[in-house]
Amino acid sequence: MKERKRIVVIGGSAAGPKAAARAKRLDPDAEVTIIQKAPEMSMASCGYPYYVGGVFDNRNALLSTPYGEVRDPHFFVHTKGVKARTLTEAVSIDREGRTVRCRDLHSGDLDDVPYDKLILATGARPRKPPIPGVDLVGVTTLQSMKDADFLRRIRDDKSITKAVVIGGGLIGIETCEALQLSGIDITVIEMLPQILMFLDWELAKILENHVRSNAANVITDVKVAGFVGENGQLTGVKLENGTELPCHLAVLAIGVIPNTDLARDAGLDIGQTGGIAVDDFMQTSDPHIYAVGDCVELVHRITGKKTRAPFGDLANLEGRVAGENAVLGNQVTFPGTLHTGICKVFDFSAGSTGLSELRARQEGYENVVTVINASLDKPEFMGAKLLISKMVVDGNTGKILGVQCVGPGDVAKQIATAAMALHGKLTVADVVNADLPYAPPFSLPIDHFIATAHLMENKLKGRLKSMSPIELKKNLDAGKDPFILDVRTPDEFEAVRIGIGETLIPIGELRHRFEDLPEDRDREIVCFCKISLRGYEAALVLESAGWRNVKVLEGGVMAWPFGREK
Amino acid sequence: MKERKRIVVIGGSAAGPKAAARAKRLDPDAEVTIIQKAPEMSMASCGYPYYVGGVFDNRNALLSTPYGEVRDPHFFVHTKGVKARTLTEAVSIDREGRTVRCRDLHSGDLDDVPYDKLILATGARPRKPPIPGVDLVGVTTLQSMKDADFLRRIRDDKSITKAVVIGGGLIGIETCEALQLSGIDITVIEMLPQILMFLDWELAKILENHVRSNAANVITDVKVAGFVGENGQLTGVKLENGTELPCHLAVLAIGVIPNTDLARDAGLDIGQTGGIAVDDFMQTSDPHIYAVGDCVELVHRITGKKTRAPFGDLANLEGRVAGENAVLGNQVTFPGTLHTGICKVFDFSAGSTGLSELRARQEGYENVVTVINASLDKPEFMGAKLLISKMVVDGNTGKILGVQCVGPGDVAKQIATAAMALHGKLTVADVVNADLPYAPPFSLPIDHFIATAHLMENKLKGRLKSMSPIELKKNLDAGKDPFILDVRTPDEFEAVRIGIGETLIPIGELRHRFEDLPEDRDREIVCFCKISLRGYEAALVLESAGWRNVKVLEGGVMAWPFGREK
Ligand SMILES: Cc1cc2nc3c(=O)[nH]c(=O)nc-3n(C[C@H](O)[C@H](O)[C@H](O)COP(=O)(O)OP(=O)(O)OC[C@H]3O[C@@H](n4cnc5c(N)ncnc54)[C@H](O)[C@@H]3O)c2cc1C
Ligand SMILES: Cc1cc2nc3c(=O)[nH]c(=O)nc-3n(C[C@H](O)[C@H](O)[C@H](O)COP(=O)(O)OP(=O)(O)OC[C@H]3O[C@@H](n4cnc5c(N)ncnc54)[C@H](O)[C@@H]3O)c2cc1C
Ligand SMILES: CC(C)(COP(=O)(O)OP(=O)(O)OC[C@H]1O[C@@H](n2cnc3c(N)ncnc32)[C@H](O)[C@@H]1OP(=O)(O)O)[C@@H](O)C(=O)NCCC(=O)NCCS
Ligand SMILES: CC(C)(COP(=O)(O)OP(=O)(O)OC[C@H]1O[C@@H](n2cnc3c(N)ncnc32)[C@H](O)[C@@H]1OP(=O)(O)O)[C@@H](O)C(=O)NCCC(=O)NCCS
Ligand SMILES: [Ca+2]
Ligand SMILES: [Ca+2]
Repeated sequence: MKERKRIVVIGGSAAGPKAAARAKRLDPDAEVTIIQKAPEMSMASCGYPYYVGGVFDNRNALLSTPYGEVRDPHFFVHTKGVKARTLTEAVSIDREGRTVRCRDLHSGDLDDVPYDKLILATGARPRKPPIPGVDLVGVTTLQSMKDADFLRRIRDDKSITKAVVIGGGLIGIETCEALQLSGIDITVIEMLPQILMFLDWELAKILENHVRSNAANVITDVKVAGFVGENGQLTGVKLENGTELPCHLAVLAIGVIPNTDLARDAGLDIGQTGGIAVDDFMQTSDPHIYAVGDCVELVHRITGKKTRAPFGDLANLEGRVAGENAVLGNQVTFPGTLHTGICKVFDFSAGSTGLSELRARQEGYENVVTVINASLDKPEFMGAKLLISKMVVDGNTGKILGVQCVGPGDVAKQIATAAMALHGKLTVADVVNADLPYAPPFSLPIDHFIATAHLMENKLKGRLKSMSPIELKKNLDAGKDPFILDVRTPDEFEAVRIGIGETLIPIGELRHRFEDLPEDRDREIVCFCKISLRGYEAALVLESAGWRNVKVLEGGVMAWPFGREK
Repeated sequence: MKERKRIVVIGGSAAGPKAAARAKRLDPDAEVTIIQKAPEMSMASCGYPYYVGGVFDNRNALLSTPYGEVRDPHFFVHTKGVKARTLTEAVSIDREGRTVRCRDLHSGDLDDVPYDKLILATGARPRKPPIPGVDLVGVTTLQSMKDADFLRRIRDDKSITKAVVIGGGLIGIETCEALQLSGIDITVIEMLPQILMFLDWELAKILENHVRSNAANVITDVKVAGFVGENGQLTGVKLENGTELPCHLAVLAIGVIPNTDLARDAGLDIGQTGGIAVDDFMQTSDPHIYAVGDCVELVHRITGKKTRAPFGDLANLEGRVAGENAVLGNQVTFPGTLHTGICKVFDFSAGSTGLSELRARQEGYENVVTVINASLDKPEFMGAKLLISKMVVDGNTGKILGVQCVGPGDVAKQIATAAMALHGKLTVADVVNADLPYAPPFSLPIDHFIATAHLMENKLKGRLKSMSPIELKKNLDAGKDPFILDVRTPDEFEAVRIGIGETLIPIGELRHRFEDLPEDRDREIVCFCKISLRGYEAALVLESAGWRNVKVLEGGVMAWPFGREK
């Protein structure tokens, strides 16, 4: 009988259990052990905000299979054939002897667990700023079941009325929603000029406005100076600008730090970005050790550079690859990340795949072309909702580099479609005639994604001469004086209006009202409508009538991220 | 001053107006005219079923922009700069003289309209079977505004209690839903063994069961012999098997026939499939004439063969290409179709892209591999719904040939994702580690699409040895006697059960209950659970314990298309 391979996995949340279960499936003779520090294992951490916010009440749902079995060590051994030790911390790795020293967190006892292959899935921990008061009771994070339990109790107790969330990233914003749904007054503090850094500023701003309209306050461009308290209990958050926000709860959500101590202490290579270095087999610098999930760094599929991508979906997929390679030898590779992500923000969603404009420019693309599109997600008569997208393209090759989408509409489908286009390394020309599933309950005849590609095609071919809302605002603030033309109907104009000195000429009248337009054919004219479809048509009409400097305001009224007159 | 190019478009529904508007945008000097036989133009025909079914009541919504302007000739001239003549029929084309003879359907007057480029967008008409009684009052189709008005009046009048829909395709099934929502008893008659031919039989059957559970009757495998009536009014539908179904309404939905008479009479090439032949510029055999929409045949993007694809999204995209080429010379190409489509069927949706298994085999692929996957569309605790997919792959190359998906879950996102994977010509290996947008409100950590690819990967690598429900049923019917193993929990088994002689051994007990399994290690064992995830794990456990002929029933209980014990 051949030797049973011993596979040890450190970390029992997402990547670890996946790797363990996969290894056992592909080598049923293997002896697979998970070492997990926390009392629980196989936690759906991404679900914490929804448990805290009361979307569901059954705590066990976070730990259970769809058919209701709790994924505890009993489950793992009986269903998955995997041994799991919870409340057990791996404290060091002996690479020579191929053992992991473990501490039983109940008894404090140490023991050495031998391995043939080791898989590190130690995840990440929340970043904590080194500022005064960070250890006060009431300052917390949302990273563990313990955190989730703590915040859920606050919801159930109704004991707290004001809270501050520090950090406007995905987890911060989800936490903001959860607490707001719990009836708590929320202020989100973000150090950067915007929330949700996977979006470019103007789309993030639309989300920010939406968060505000849901009665949660957002303050950007400001740092937290410290926490103030009484008797060890938080009473307020102090900002660097001097403001003090009274509150009894502060949730830190300013990013995560990969847990690499074990790896570092064992002498494994740590990458430039701070994650454990792995090759595309998910193998570390020691061929007997793999690493997966939030503790590693990955390759970015577009830039080819190393990056961190702490996402639950990738943790599972990486685990699956490492689990296979650990038992069968290096068979399969993990191709890296597109940083594809999404989050729900009250009635809006925000998603992104690939590079934002900012990232593309930082990465050194010289000819970055972007366009903003706004449209409904399906026909008006089917109960449509708005989508606002931004597509980022390499102007030299036409290759799509990234797509962002926000709004109340079906953002998930947009981003899934876009992500798959990026996986196929498709160009704008490749997708303008894509054959997608169309029926009125699901999309417009020309789906929003394809329409966005049409706009980009028009822009690349010099047919759509447009500017982003940021550019227009900058020009106006700098004292430029373009003629601003709103081509919506009078009814629309009465209901909602940007208010930047625009003149209203409905598109249907435009061809007969050239006398109401600037005499100077070189004066800059900026056209728009609700979404700038009619704005685009107006621009073409004016150009063909002889105006030489006509622009379209991308996304129209709906994508205007600044204040509106009404 | 250069000559104004004269563009004439015949047909004013979807492809025609799109071509016209696009031509005018790209050549604002052009004189663009639409000739449209019907009284309305620019109709959202795909919305008819939803208007008939009462999803909305405003008839004008079918003809309006999202901002409420009716797309009539006034709108076209003022907003799009395009002249449109409704109630005008093109009766012949003089290719030598480059004129179209038109008849004013009010006055009967004829006139000749000259063109530099002509675009045919004459669409398609419903197929009518040459059977007795087809002209009785009460026998109709759902293809025009007139038809929609007729059926909507029936809804509003509540005058009819029983109707028959002939044809179980997309339009037939949508019509069935619309009439059922109007409180009418429906029977759908389908000549073939299944409804919705874009699905393979077993997925279509799941839909058929769903239609039945919504109190509409479905009869497959039977032809209509004729219609019977009294005083010119329909009273019943006679089937070839002798049955007569009493009813006062019958809707024919047995497919469409491209309107090619004008083209044929003018001597243009008609393709093998019956559509007008065009190249990839959408140009007919006459370089001055383009053709687009339901009246043409296209290239299938996977097989490379000619095919018909009467879809509203493609009509628009083809129109957009021809509009450009007509004014700027042949600039852009239309790459063809994947037959990507979707429809809503009560609380289920059904979608497909690329080739079904049946089509792939008909097309001559020698090594067609398929797999059925069932899973939730997001975590249980977020209010998940079921998805059932079938993936079709070329086993020689791993290339994905097609994906079908049905169920109450988010089918549209699945099919959009799959369609984009097909556009990228991706293989299974390319998508197993795709980076899609994951958050609990939108998907599982391993999205259903990726999970389907995982199953396929496992199957291609010989790890998942499975059979489709059809194969198992066939074996059972042929008297084979596999040992059938259900590995769900006792509670699940009590609630729902296939009832084909299965033995229940919950997965968690399996490793200790080998004595309850066949002694003969070569006896065929077929494992399943609710979706066959645990079924797969069970199969691996049994294989490693020495059973040599273990199979997984694909899709488990949820994808079982036949009757169940309970
Ligand atoms: C509130 C929240 C919301 C999120 N939402 C999303 C989302 O919507 N979409 C998305 O893609 N991602 C989301 N994420 C991220 C996602 O949860 C993580 O990417 C994923 O959990 C990472 O899995 P992992 O197994 O690598 O690490 P972790 O989940 O961090 O697990 C690591 C485990 O290792 C254990 N461990 C660490 N060190 C040791 C040691 N020395 N010995 C033993 N055990 C050890 C810890 O106890 C821990 O349980 C969210 C995360 C949070 C917290
Ligand atoms: C009920 C229903 C539901 C549908 N649902 C969907 C769906 O969910 N998804 C999808 O993708 N597709 C769907 N379709 C198909 C879609 O509507 C068609 O593909 C699309 O309308 C085709 O557009 P077309 O412009 O090519 O042709 P048509 O819409 O058929 O229009 C052709 C026009 O040409 C005019 N015409 C014809 N001959 C002449 C002539 N000699 N002179 C002047 N005018 C002429 C006719 O009056 C007609 O209005 C549905 C269709 C129907 C009927
Ligand atoms: C659940 C968990 C333990 C993984 O266990 P697993 O056994 O690898 O995964 P599953 O139970 O989903 O699937 C088991 C196998 O069945 C296969 N499978 C899934 N559905 C199937 C179906 N309908 N038919 C046949 N096989 C199926 C899968 O492909 C998988 O096999 P593979 O990975 O070898 O290809 C791990 O993902 C985990 O702990 N998750 C919870 C936490 C988490 O993901 N958190 C982060 C986000 S919140
Ligand atoms: C509406 C219809 C007349 C087409 O007209 P159109 O002017 O070509 O199309 P739209 O009004 O949608 O768009 C106009 C232009 O604005 C562009 N556009 C769309 N949204 C935009 C935005 N937010 N900003 C800037 N430009 C935008 C489009 O790309 C298009 O230009 P292009 O095709 O040259 O690239 C035609 O599609 C039609 O009749 N449809 C109704 C019926 C139908 O489609 N039926 C079948 C399915 S039910
Ligand atoms: Ca992702
Ligand atoms: Ca389509």
